[in-house]
Amino acid sequence: MAEFRRRIILVNKKLQLKYAFIISGVLIFMLLLVEYHTYLTINLAIPNLLTSAVGEQIKQIHFWLIVNGTVYALFIGVVSIYISHKIAGPIFKIKKQLKEILETGDTSKKIFLRKGDELADLVEVINEYISKSTIKK
Amino acid sequence: MAEFRRRIILVNKKLQLKYAFIISGVLIFMLLLVEYHTYLTINLAIPNLLTSAVGEQIKQIHFWLIVNGTVYALFIGVVSIYISHKIAGPIFKIKKQLKEILETGDTSKKIFLRKGDELADLVEVINEYISKSTIKK
Repeated sequence: MAEFRRRIILVNKKLQLKYAFIISGVLIFMLLLVEYHTYLTINLAIPNLLTSAVGEQIKQIHFWLIVNGTVYALFIGVVSIYISHKIAGPIFKIKKQLKEILETGDTSKKIFLRKGDELADLVEVINEYISKSTIKK
Repeated sequence: MAEFRRRIILVNKKLQLKYAFIISGVLIFMLLLVEYHTYLTINLAIPNLLTSAVGEQIKQIHFWLIVNGTVYALFIGVVSIYISHKIAGPIFKIKKQLKEILETGDTSKKIFLRKGDELADLVEVINEYISKSTIKK
């Protein structure tokens, strides 16, 4: 059913963006670290390679490697927003449903999850709690 | 207080390990993709570079780059288990506390979080729900 599709991808904007930035940042940092580590290793194994005639070409390869790596890292940051949605979505629903029940007092309501959502076991316990509780007036 | 420290790092083993494997896998895949992308770019810009006399040395650099990258990727997978704990920890506590209240019927209990834990807003709503509810006997 179309109206059941979640259209909002950033249900917990702050948390999801925070992790997207951390993930992109860590990836780019890791890429530079790997490059630097390899540079040190090679400098030890083959000294003068980078100052030789082919040094310029090797530097060009690695310039592109860093550019490509950064683009992929940013892409993964964006993808992580979609993945985190499988956790943030259920959390958003739990909060919404509990607030609704607190207002209406109707503890016959249940929280339903989408296929592929995480936190099914948490929602199960909360649903059990809801069904066994009544709201104080 | 020492007894308040969480000692179990894998509170939601399945979820945390799943994401750790996904993260390590994606990183290693990305590294190989970046390498391959750069290889194609360079082959286009400087044909025959890799078959020239320095080709062997360039291949050696990239062999180490992939080895280093894989080690870092696995390391990040392990670190992600610790980070995911900041989300999995509160979820574990919510489930534990709700089950306890269902058994004892004591709705004066509250869920407390550690500093640095995520999901503070979810716990706030759940605490409000608990305090305003009674358990059916």
